[in-house]
Amino acid sequence: MQRKKITVIGSGALGTSLANVLKDSNDKNEILIYGIDEKELDDLKNGKNSKYFPEINFHCFDVSNNLKEAVNQADYLVLALPSIAIESVISEIVNNVKSPTLIINGCKGFFPNTTKPLHEEISNRAKSNSNIRGVVTLSGPSFASEIIKKSLTSIAAIGYNIEHLVEIQELFKTNYFKLYCQTDVVGAEIGGIYKNILAIGAGMLTQLGYKINTLAVYLTRGMKELSTFNKFMGGKDKTIYGLTGLGDLILTATDVNSRNFTFGMNFIKNEKDTKNITLEGLTALKVVEDIRAKNNLSLPIEEALYNVIYKNNSVEEEIKKLWNRDWQKEE
Amino acid sequence: MQRKKITVIGSGALGTSLANVLKDSNDKNEILIYGIDEKELDDLKNGKNSKYFPEINFHCFDVSNNLKEAVNQADYLVLALPSIAIESVISEIVNNVKSPTLIINGCKGFFPNTTKPLHEEISNRAKSNSNIRGVVTLSGPSFASEIIKKSLTSIAAIGYNIEHLVEIQELFKTNYFKLYCQTDVVGAEIGGIYKNILAIGAGMLTQLGYKINTLAVYLTRGMKELSTFNKFMGGKDKTIYGLTGLGDLILTATDVNSRNFTFGMNFIKNEKDTKNITLEGLTALKVVEDIRAKNNLSLPIEEALYNVIYKNNSVEEEIKKLWNRDWQKEE
Repeated sequence: MQRKKITVIGSGALGTSLANVLKDSNDKNEILIYGIDEKELDDLKNGKNSKYFPEINFHCFDVSNNLKEAVNQADYLVLALPSIAIESVISEIVNNVKSPTLIINGCKGFFPNTTKPLHEEISNRAKSNSNIRGVVTLSGPSFASEIIKKSLTSIAAIGYNIEHLVEIQELFKTNYFKLYCQTDVVGAEIGGIYKNILAIGAGMLTQLGYKINTLAVYLTRGMKELSTFNKFMGGKDKTIYGLTGLGDLILTATDVNSRNFTFGMNFIKNEKDTKNITLEGLTALKVVEDIRAKNNLSLPIEEALYNVIYKNNSVEEEIKKLWNRDWQKEE
Repeated sequence: MQRKKITVIGSGALGTSLANVLKDSNDKNEILIYGIDEKELDDLKNGKNSKYFPEINFHCFDVSNNLKEAVNQADYLVLALPSIAIESVISEIVNNVKSPTLIINGCKGFFPNTTKPLHEEISNRAKSNSNIRGVVTLSGPSFASEIIKKSLTSIAAIGYNIEHLVEIQELFKTNYFKLYCQTDVVGAEIGGIYKNILAIGAGMLTQLGYKINTLAVYLTRGMKELSTFNKFMGGKDKTIYGLTGLGDLILTATDVNSRNFTFGMNFIKNEKDTKNITLEGLTALKVVEDIRAKNNLSLPIEEALYNVIYKNNSVEEEIKKLWNRDWQKEE
């Protein structure tokens, strides 16, 4: 198998775990991790990441804190950073890539300060540099903390170009990590965005003491309204019941390792830090509420969450309102 | 609201919790619980159920150990017993009902020694007594242990006759328990049956140490093959993504309170008690495997579980086979 030059942009949990998969897939791959934290980079040179995975040893990586040089000659660029940081990084990439490269985007949500899902907007911006062959987005149920332990993990490679998807599938293929190909970009992105909203509510319900009977109804009805929103946005229904929607919801909405879930719990504990703008679920909530209100969509759970978080409505009142909705038929 | 005479057949966890909902819904309802365990019946007279809910006090109920008399004059008969016991009870009902009654079936699975889902077969047998107005089945995500604590719980009332469904919806209506109406009987029953099979596998994976990345993929792919099976059986796709399918799967496949999930865990611990014939998931597995094999359906998870449980194949080998299947597209 040919050796590839791959730059992973982001030295956090996601970047580290994906870099490790790429090395496990083919140990001839030349992997460079770009980051801004010198301590993290020092760690990664020694096959460690004390901040996120203190107990684990993995491959040693080349590192760089020079973004311009790091993106310059890579065959693949893996974006593994908070979505809030993506705007400046994309500009650097577009301005500096000098040889053919494919972007692999590991971020979800809306592009900062826009209502465009990330994949769509990254693809648009990438077009201005003809060396960028295209963009493939990774999305699905995966905590980096489990990928690094080589737990069986399967997510989706998303994009319109099936040849690119198959290429990326091969690039990441190991005996514990596999990618399914998904060409319904809209459906995959909407699922990945909406599940973060639902995860916030699941965290709230959990903190309020609701148990699995209630959570199961909440998630099932949540999927119904995700289906409504997805159809409106132009995605396919079957996509949201796949890995990028339902699969990721099961993970995000039931596990305290999810930041959106934890935010919901903390919100109920009166730590109402809505200024935490790096939380994908909060950004998503604002954008979706805007679309819902303008188009008069029926998204009762999303609306209730917006009322609780941004209008200071009582969570108990909103739950009561949801419960007392007309519910003759399950549709 | 009119007072109703309701007989609940079964003094276990399900019967007790449903009787309590019916009394909460309208305290004028005359509720009689039939059972065979004298200790349980004594408890229920005093608003207790020491075996299942030792810490909870609820309504006091009239009780009976005479099935013939218990079913005789009731407006509603609620079946709340293990599906293995249902055959003899149905015969007694059919032979003894002397005034108009509606059967409310709380059991899931296949009718004992047949390949017919319970609702369908109970309905068939009920036709021979014209006093039986019809059958409505209750199905969805609900542990009785939470219903008795008045946790918000919502499941589906299933049947072909929408007027009966609405009638039952009203009968059970309380501020913590609500029924959605579902007329896709086949889809609802197949979902309720298949989720028990998937729950066994979820228990196995959990006991083997797999975490949420793996479980999320397992459940998502499990839903895909439930969709395949359901379509083959004639159910609608959207039904299985509702309360009776997905909702119940979330509950059954993630919680140690589920007997099927716990069976999967114990199986891996080498307590391979497959003679436990009252386990709905095992009965379902045999029937579904038979249908799969005869019709060459693609149900890889079900097939793997069958191979592990009934052919003594290695669970690790079956997981490897599943993992290495062709998986280019997510479909």
